[in-house]
Amino acid sequence: MSSEESDHVYKKIELTGTSSKSIEDAINSAIAKASETVRNMRWFEVVEVRGNIDGQAVQHWQVTLKVGFRLDG
Amino acid sequence: MSSEESDHVYKKIELTGTSSKSIEDAINSAIAKASETVRNMRWFEVVEVRGNIDGQAVQHWQVTLKVGFRLDG
Amino acid sequence: MSSEESDHVYKKIELTGTSSKSIEDAINSAIAKASETVRNMRWFEVVEVRGNIDGQAVQHWQVTLKVGFRLDG
Amino acid sequence: MSSEESDHVYKKIELTGTSSKSIEDAINSAIAKASETVRNMRWFEVVEVRGNIDGQAVQHWQVTLKVGFRLDG
Amino acid sequence: MSSEESDHVYKKIELTGTSSKSIEDAINSAIAKASETVRNMRWFEVVEVRGNIDGQAVQHWQVTLKVGFRLDG
Amino acid sequence: MSSEESDHVYKKIELTGTSSKSIEDAINSAIAKASETVRNMRWFEVVEVRGNIDGQAVQHWQVTLKVGFRLDG
Amino acid sequence: MSSEESDHVYKKIELTGTSSKSIEDAINSAIAKASETVRNMRWFEVVEVRGNIDGQAVQHWQVTLKVGFRLDG
Amino acid sequence: MSSEESDHVYKKIELTGTSSKSIEDAINSAIAKASETVRNMRWFEVVEVRGNIDGQAVQHWQVTLKVGFRLDG
Amino acid sequence: MSSEESDHVYKKIELTGTSSKSIEDAINSAIAKASETVRNMRWFEVVEVRGNIDGQAVQHWQVTLKVGFRLDG
Amino acid sequence: MSSEESDHVYKKIELTGTSSKSIEDAINSAIAKASETVRNMRWFEVVEVRGNIDGQAVQHWQVTLKVGFRLDG
Amino acid sequence: MSSEESDHVYKKIELTGTSSKSIEDAINSAIAKASETVRNMRWFEVVEVRGNIDGQAVQHWQVTLKVGFRLDG
Amino acid sequence: MSSEESDHVYKKIELTGTSSKSIEDAINSAIAKASETVRNMRWFEVVEVRGNIDGQAVQHWQVTLKVGFRLDG
Repeated sequence: MSSEESDHVYKKIELTGTSSKSIEDAINSAIAKASETVRNMRWFEVVEVRGNIDGQAVQHWQVTLKVGFRLDG
Repeated sequence: MSSEESDHVYKKIELTGTSSKSIEDAINSAIAKASETVRNMRWFEVVEVRGNIDGQAVQHWQVTLKVGFRLDG
Repeated sequence: MSSEESDHVYKKIELTGTSSKSIEDAINSAIAKASETVRNMRWFEVVEVRGNIDGQAVQHWQVTLKVGFRLDG
Repeated sequence: MSSEESDHVYKKIELTGTSSKSIEDAINSAIAKASETVRNMRWFEVVEVRGNIDGQAVQHWQVTLKVGFRLDG
Repeated sequence: MSSEESDHVYKKIELTGTSSKSIEDAINSAIAKASETVRNMRWFEVVEVRGNIDGQAVQHWQVTLKVGFRLDG
Repeated sequence: MSSEESDHVYKKIELTGTSSKSIEDAINSAIAKASETVRNMRWFEVVEVRGNIDGQAVQHWQVTLKVGFRLDG
Repeated sequence: MSSEESDHVYKKIELTGTSSKSIEDAINSAIAKASETVRNMRWFEVVEVRGNIDGQAVQHWQVTLKVGFRLDG
Repeated sequence: MSSEESDHVYKKIELTGTSSKSIEDAINSAIAKASETVRNMRWFEVVEVRGNIDGQAVQHWQVTLKVGFRLDG
Repeated sequence: MSSEESDHVYKKIELTGTSSKSIEDAINSAIAKASETVRNMRWFEVVEVRGNIDGQAVQHWQVTLKVGFRLDG
Repeated sequence: MSSEESDHVYKKIELTGTSSKSIEDAINSAIAKASETVRNMRWFEVVEVRGNIDGQAVQHWQVTLKVGFRLDG
Repeated sequence: MSSEESDHVYKKIELTGTSSKSIEDAINSAIAKASETVRNMRWFEVVEVRGNIDGQAVQHWQVTLKVGFRLDG
Repeated sequence: MSSEESDHVYKKIELTGTSSKSIEDAINSAIAKASETVRNMRWFEVVEVRGNIDGQAVQHWQVTLKVGFRLDG
């Protein structure tokens, strides 16, 4: 959080994004989806990295993250 | 998560279910209550098991769990 | 949770309150803000205490807490 | 803890109960035994679930819990 | 471990058992399966309790445990 | 522990103090209560900070701490 | 785990994969190597990310993961 | 960290501040002392709260925190 | 715990033993002291290893352990 | 650490690197910056992955790592 | 891991060694036993130190460790 | 920390000491090395015990510890 935001209250939600490409892409996928309904997202924290396996390679990356956003008003 | 669900984004919420019967019943109680307003619940993870005591026996089991559900669309 | 509330289901949300005064004030700030939209809040648990620094003193206390509230009905 | 008890001080002790039947039974076994010497027990928190194995099945469930009780006076 | 076994070396493996009935049943399921190939299993420790959800109830309990067994000879 | 105390053995007990005023006051409340029966208390470690909520503010701070004291003789 | 697999028992093994390219590549390296001897691998969980340094850059990424696979039959 | 600082590299050091007054004062004591030799301190995270006991009250609060500061240039 | 003891209930206490010689000696010091007042001690678990420093060497090893003992009768 | 280095003593420092590109790039950014003043860096361990969000995407990756280096002589 | 080994994949197994003498001896006991069937062991990490008590002294040290070894070829 | 030192501020650094002899020796090795440049060291806390393996025995013990020292003046 930057200094100018510090008088506010924030809420954190926990999301799991998935991607067949990379860890970063799974995180961006979760944030993009959340942005459809959540405003003022400020930061995220990775909680867990896992995935499923198809034969002998990673099929989907599944990254759980907490996203903090400022409560309006 | 099964493979066919992996292109989606999931949200996890944290609930505490209670029951006078068993740990399993407290978990099912929380999931049944959540199903009244949350669709597409897929999995849960137990976070904490505790309870209150009446005299010399467990009175209520209180089980905190995280429940993951698919965000629509 | 008191005994008479034990047949209910509770949800926990995670908030970060901020204050330039104290840790306690940051917690009360988060609870006061949440009370505008959340009913039946019962307890909280402190998850993290941090803050930002302005020169050589704490500028804002940032306290992350989980707040449990009874689901209606 | 319910509200009316909040002016008190509580002590927590750590117990391991055992049972050949179930996790819940091992917890109740520990609480029943403790109630012989400890008054005013209010809540418990499960710390660990383990057990020993006899051949190919669980022989005894061993559940470690913390039990909180109000200090008298 | 009992005293008379203490001169041995033990190995721990991590298993996930599943059951539609209960947590205890999922644990026994994992131990029974492991007993087909592993001898001298002595104790287990529960690592994680989770499960999948079908509509508004638990469909399968998935319990991850570590199982300790004595290395032969 | 200071150097001159280092040849002794210490025991740690776990307490939960409560206060309507502050975190520090809840800790001092627990220590004052324990001092009625425990001698030679030397240090404490905070384990958990939580509390209950009355409407839109903290009603009681509940702080769990471990207290170390020297075993006599 | 998908629903249809839930009647099975799974084993988890812990591997460390290495790569000079990326975290993802180190994970795939471990899974590809394990697939030479392990069948029915289903999912993985990242446990640790570390690496060694050559001068002023990462030389090798070393990622420790747990891999879950279904026990046959 | 605010957005405009994000291209920098930060170092975190671990300090223990002490105070006979309060947790907040112990933290400010550590930051004030560190500011004599460290520039560009930005944030802190509380790691541990403990203290020593004199008779039946807290004598000194001892708070361990990590302090992050921007590396120059 | 050995099998024949599994029908009992156990209590765990937390002790800190000190020694100028070794980690093992600090543990034995705590157990010997506890044996003056506690019967039926069965096992211990090391919780923390620390110590104080005199100039450039360890002066005293301070080892915190939990000790489990069977509750009588 | 390789075998030939094992007679030495190592120090670990904690850094946060940032990057708008990837997790790996943030880590290399921290190591490159540290190499300006620290010699003999040998390994790193990732402690935390987080970042800030600009609208609906990750703006900067912020990766905290510990870096171990051999103390000279 | 030394640099020259970094292109390989490693597996970690979890063992518990026992000894009536010391913590170090329990670790060496586990490694010696594992070396009868496992090649290319490279490093270990201590996970837990515990033991059983005979009267008023430690009877056996029980140390759980993870051992990493290079997968062949 | 002893009582008379409590008005000071302390810094903690993280070191890894190595030894072919014992865990205690690895810790003393780290402290002796640090004492060449750090004054007023007061206490240490063990963070991790690991080591490398040569064939079928421990070759070097590698113990990571935090060392606390008083900041001058």
